[in-house]
Order: sequence, then C-alpha cells, then structure tokens
Amino acid sequence: MKVLVLNCGSSSIKYKLFDTDTKEVLAQGGVEKIGLPGSFLKLTLPNGEKVVLEKDIPEHTVGIDFILSTLTSDKYGCISSLEEIEAVGHRVVHGGEKFNQSVLITQEVKDMIVACIDIAPLHNPANLKGIDAVEAILPQVPQVAVFDTAFHQTMPKYAYMYGIPYELYEKYAIRRYGFHGTSHRYVSRRACEFLGVPYESQKIITCHIGNGGSITAVKDGKSVDTSMGLTPVEGLMMGTRSGDIDAGALSYIMEKENLDAAGLSNLVNKKSGVLGVSGVSSDMREIEAAVANGHERAILALNMYDYRIRKYIGAYAAAMGGVDIIVFTGGVGENQTKTREVACQGLEFMGIKIDTILNAKIRGTETIISTPDSRVKVVVIPTDEEYMIASDTQEILSKC
Amino acid sequence: MKVLVLNCGSSSIKYKLFDTDTKEVLAQGGVEKIGLPGSFLKLTLPNGEKVVLEKDIPEHTVGIDFILSTLTSDKYGCISSLEEIEAVGHRVVHGGEKFNQSVLITQEVKDMIVACIDIAPLHNPANLKGIDAVEAILPQVPQVAVFDTAFHQTMPKYAYMYGIPYELYEKYAIRRYGFHGTSHRYVSRRACEFLGVPYESQKIITCHIGNGGSITAVKDGKSVDTSMGLTPVEGLMMGTRSGDIDAGALSYIMEKENLDAAGLSNLVNKKSGVLGVSGVSSDMREIEAAVANGHERAILALNMYDYRIRKYIGAYAAAMGGVDIIVFTGGVGENQTKTREVACQGLEFMGIKIDTILNAKIRGTETIISTPDSRVKVVVIPTDEEYMIASDTQEILSKC
Repeated sequence: MKVLVLNCGSSSIKYKLFDTDTKEVLAQGGVEKIGLPGSFLKLTLPNGEKVVLEKDIPEHTVGIDFILSTLTSDKYGCISSLEEIEAVGHRVVHGGEKFNQSVLITQEVKDMIVACIDIAPLHNPANLKGIDAVEAILPQVPQVAVFDTAFHQTMPKYAYMYGIPYELYEKYAIRRYGFHGTSHRYVSRRACEFLGVPYESQKIITCHIGNGGSITAVKDGKSVDTSMGLTPVEGLMMGTRSGDIDAGALSYIMEKENLDAAGLSNLVNKKSGVLGVSGVSSDMREIEAAVANGHERAILALNMYDYRIRKYIGAYAAAMGGVDIIVFTGGVGENQTKTREVACQGLEFMGIKIDTILNAKIRGTETIISTPDSRVKVVVIPTDEEYMIASDTQEILSKC
Repeated sequence: MKVLVLNCGSSSIKYKLFDTDTKEVLAQGGVEKIGLPGSFLKLTLPNGEKVVLEKDIPEHTVGIDFILSTLTSDKYGCISSLEEIEAVGHRVVHGGEKFNQSVLITQEVKDMIVACIDIAPLHNPANLKGIDAVEAILPQVPQVAVFDTAFHQTMPKYAYMYGIPYELYEKYAIRRYGFHGTSHRYVSRRACEFLGVPYESQKIITCHIGNGGSITAVKDGKSVDTSMGLTPVEGLMMGTRSGDIDAGALSYIMEKENLDAAGLSNLVNKKSGVLGVSGVSSDMREIEAAVANGHERAILALNMYDYRIRKYIGAYAAAMGGVDIIVFTGGVGENQTKTREVACQGLEFMGIKIDTILNAKIRGTETIISTPDSRVKVVVIPTDEEYMIASDTQEILSKC
C-alpha cells in the first residue's frame, strides 16, 4: 500500500511516501517557511541528492498541493497519478486522554483533536490544517491520525498525576501525557525484534534524545512512565528547554525578572537548556565542538545533559523493578557516542556494561553496544516515526 | 559543655538544652504564636509530661527571655544560673554559597546571613532575630550558626545547576542548594557508626521524609546530589508542596487560574502535595487512615508519595554508581512502615531486600530492616538535628 506520511508544523510540512509492503521510502522532503517570505520545497532524490524548489506558499493547502504535484511531476515524481496514494497518515502531537492509539480520521476524531488544542496550542492547529488540506485536495483518500501521546496512555495514575490540587486535573486535564510516543513505541518494539526477545515480557528504557528528548520506561510492551509531562518542557535537559527545575525557583525568577506566565513559558522553552547554560548553541554537535576546545560552560552543559539521562535510567529501572534493555535513539542517541558512554557510566551495579570501543564506532546503525557479559542489553536503534505512522495507517485501513 | 540549641521561626522558637559531654537533653520545649494572641511556652518535663505556660510574647527577644527564665526557674528549671549556658547553637536555614560548614557567629557572619535573606525570605530573618535576641540578653555567650544548606555545598556543579540561562545563576545565585543538610549529615554518619563501616567510603542514600522531605546521595561522606533545590518545593511530593512538576504545566496553570508569581508560589507551597491530591490532609498519618478506609484520592496520594521516593532511590544509585546503605529518617521515614516497604519494592535488582516482617515492627528505633542477605543495608535512623547542632557548636568552641 502506498501511504503518504505528513508531519505538519505551523510553518512547515514534512512528508514521506512509503510502500508499506516493501517498507520502501518512495519519496521524501518537506516544504518550509509557509506564510513567510522565501518559502520552498526541499526533496531528497533516491540518490541522496537534495533539490530545492522555490515557490510562494501562503498557507498549508498550497503546501500540500505543492507536495502532491511534486510527487507526480515528470522531473522529480515517483508516482504517475495521485490515485496511487491509498492513504495519508498524520503525526498529531496531542491526543490528550481521548486517544490511546492511532485512529481513522472522521469528523468526530477531528472534533476531538480540536478539543485538545487547549493543551497543545502550538501543534494541534497545524496538524489539523494538514488534515483539512488533504481532505480538500484528496477527498476520497482515507486519513489516519497517529498521536505522540497515545503510547503513554498506559501509564498508571500514580505516575501521570502531579502533586497539585486534584481539581486542576478535573478542570483542565493537567497531568503527565508524554510525547515522542511513536518513537518510543517503534524503537522499543524494534529493539526486541532485533534482539529476538518477546516484547511483552521485557523491561525497556528508551532514550529518545536529541534537540528535544524524552526517556520512557516500557514494561511488558506498555509505557509506564515517561519524562515529558503536560508539555515537552519537563524531564531531560534539551536544546533550549530547561527540563526538570524547582517550581519554587520559577516563581523566584518571575519576580526577579518581572515575567508573566508567557514570559516564563518563553524562558523555559526557548532560552534554556543546553543553549542557556552553555551560551554557545542548542545544537549538541556544536556543543561537542566547543567542549573539544575546552569551553567551560559547554563542558558544564554537556555534563548536565549526560548526568540527567543517567539519573532517569536509574529512576526508571527502579520504577520497573529492573531493566533488561536500554535503547538509544534520536539525533544524539544515534550519533553522539560519548553521551551514550557517559550516560551508562557507573551503572555496572545494575548489570549495564558498555563496550566503549565498539560504542565509539557506532553512528545510526542498529547495534548492541553492551558487552557480551552485560546482563542488560544496550542497543542503538535509529528511530523511524514516519515508518511507524505509515505502518499504523496501513494496519488500520486493512481492518476497515 | 552546656549548649542551648535554638530553631527560630517567624512566630515560634524551639529549644533544647544539651550537655554535650553526656549527650543528655537537660530541657526542651518551645514558644509559639510570637506576636499573635494566645502565645505560650510549652515544655516537656524529664518524665515526658508537657506543661503549657501562657504569656504575652510580642517579639523574639521576649520569647528568648521567657525560655531562659524557664530554664532557671525554681519550678521547671534545670540550671541554677544562665552562666551555666556556655554556648548557643542556631539552626539557620539558608547559607547560600557562602557557608559550607557551621561557623562561630560574628558580625561578618551575620552580614552574610543577611545577604542570603533574598533566597530564604521566610526563614533567615527569623533566624537572625533569634541570634540578635540572644546577643542582647547573653552578650558574653558565643553563638554558632549551623546551616541547612551547608552539607550540600559539596555537590558537583553539574548536579546543582539548573538548565536555564547561566546569567540567572550569575545575577541571582539561582541553583540547587538543598535543605535538611544537618539531618542528612547526621543520619548518614550515624548509620555508618551503627553499621560499623567507614563513613568515607560508602555510597549512602538518605531519605529524610515527613511532612517536608528530601533525599540525598552521600558519596564518601559528601553530599553529591539532593532532591530539594533553590527552594524546598522541589523533589519529593510533600504534605502541601508539589515536589517535581513540569515547568510548562506551571505557566499553563498560571494562565488558566490567572495567577501571578506569588499565586504560583502559594499554590505549589501551600495547596499542593499530599493535601492537594487527596483533599484529605497534609498529614501522612491521616492519609494512612483514609487509605485504610478505601479513600480513592488518599490511596492515589500515598501511591504517588511512595513511587517518587522509589524513583529518587534509583536515580541517586545511578548518580553514585551504586548504593551501599539506604537510611530512612524523619516523621514518615521513622514511623510509616508501609512507605519504607513500598519505596524499596522491586529494588532487588539493585541488591535491596527489606525484611518486611521486621520492618513492620520498627518505629523510631535504630534498626537494620534489610534481610541478612541484602547487599544494600537498609536502616532506620531517627534524626537528631538538634544534637548535631549542639555537637557542631561544642566542636567549634573547643577549637577557639
């Protein structure tokens, strides 16, 4: 089945066209700067070459139309007609408590995604724009929504509730939801396939770490805790997000810096994390370069980044009563070999032992990086959220 | 040496008179409701009987005077003259980065405690009032300040810094300080004495849990991480404090509930935690009673409370590269047997095994509650911050 996977942001749309039977990626790229000057479509050709096509893209429908016409174009196309696209799968960020799995999009589902806008004001509206645009251009094609939060809906209540007045949960549904669910689900399953062990009886810690990052405890195939919360600010230190921080420190900062709620949100989302601590960059590759040059605050930022991963590994092992598999994925998890090594340092007491020589060589390939005698298997699994979305879409439609 | 230990709050002063040579408590009690109607002094007689003496106490000097005259009174006194008091030791809450150990109080020290008021506006001013009152009444008696934060000054920078702009640390000294340092120091040392192992080579996790609560990782005799932060809101769920919570959730709540910084601070300090979740009480004994009656939200609150302790144990074991000793102390840690059991549940993979039958019997007595084959020793050690303050005071004066 040919499935088009879309990830619609407020000013960009990423796409991948899959043949789910062969798992082949037929086309991939994205439009950027929607509604802004200098908008363009960038695609990656099968040989890896990248092509940029400039065009005015005032809104999402034009962007989707541009993608579809490129998919069928003589020069860059890979399908002869839009009728070949059998389904469209969308990444939708926030499904609240309403969605615990991927669903066929109906008017009712759209209404429910609208109802979640309140807790995901930046993402859900853009996701809905993409769904509407596809509906307008390809009205016959079924669409599926795959939620970033759905996989985490299995968390027990004591793990997802915050220690605040219960009424805030009842009134506003304030609780931990978690994100990156599609990635955590994909890599935890894939790790078990790769290791040849049954998914339903493993204790797995999945470290999806990159510019954004979250860690999930997956027990017997279910997410039982995850580091991101109501919003993607909580948990690990990230590129520009603070991660865990004292609530008392926040009210203190607000008073000192005369910030309101929006100012606080801007601070912890945009100016914090690795960027805020280092003063260098939010990009971990640039941090590593600065560390190599002995930049003191970059070293501090990297140490903090790594240390917090290690603490979460310990916390989640305790939460599950042990750990069998640790998975590293995401931009940093797949490529920054030193972070993997440091995050696992000193964890021999938990049965975790990294082969540091092998680990140092591995970038982005499925590999067991623990030593043969390590009780816990530590693996690198490149994530593939788009494939998971395509696969969910194919599976849901095959049941319709 | 006879040392008077004082813990001055904004409207109360607790006192204990020690003979540090015999470790004997000669007198103990406190004045309450300073500056409020119905102020009184309550003392505990050597036979355990409590006596309440009512008196108007408009401010701290009168309170100290009342304590001193009671100590020398015919009816309730234990010393014949104030000259027998050789030193006064004060609990001081926040020593910022200025104090990493207890110190003899001089004008310079007082100025430095004043300089820390900004980050401890509720506590340091009251501590200073007590120091000034003693100085006025007993000008010849040396005083010593023992800081709640001092023990944690050994934390490495990657553990005490927050993932926010570095400038906020430079401008306002915003970082993790931690609290309950005197207790964590006392019980970690005492546990090693009790177990007959060298303090300088152990990995210890001290759980000081009660209405307030914090957990500390003590490696080789030094605090290397602790769960409270700039303020005592961070970390574990507490009686009325939220503990760890998504910074993004806080700005969201502020917008929904139209709160400013003071409103946020009030919410996470006074209305949250076990009280906020359960709707029943901030007192864990009342929560346990409600749990016994099947109260759903009390059960949730208790589960959250216990779960978070377990996660911190895991995180700090990971931070230290293992753990040799776990110490439970504080009102809950010494007495709520079920919380100790649940917090350690499933941690066999880390070498932790509780003797649940023995554990269920132990309330407030120094006991090893792990099984003989448990690699990690789990112990109950009743805390004694006042004795630690007396002991520090005696030690500092013996060097003068």
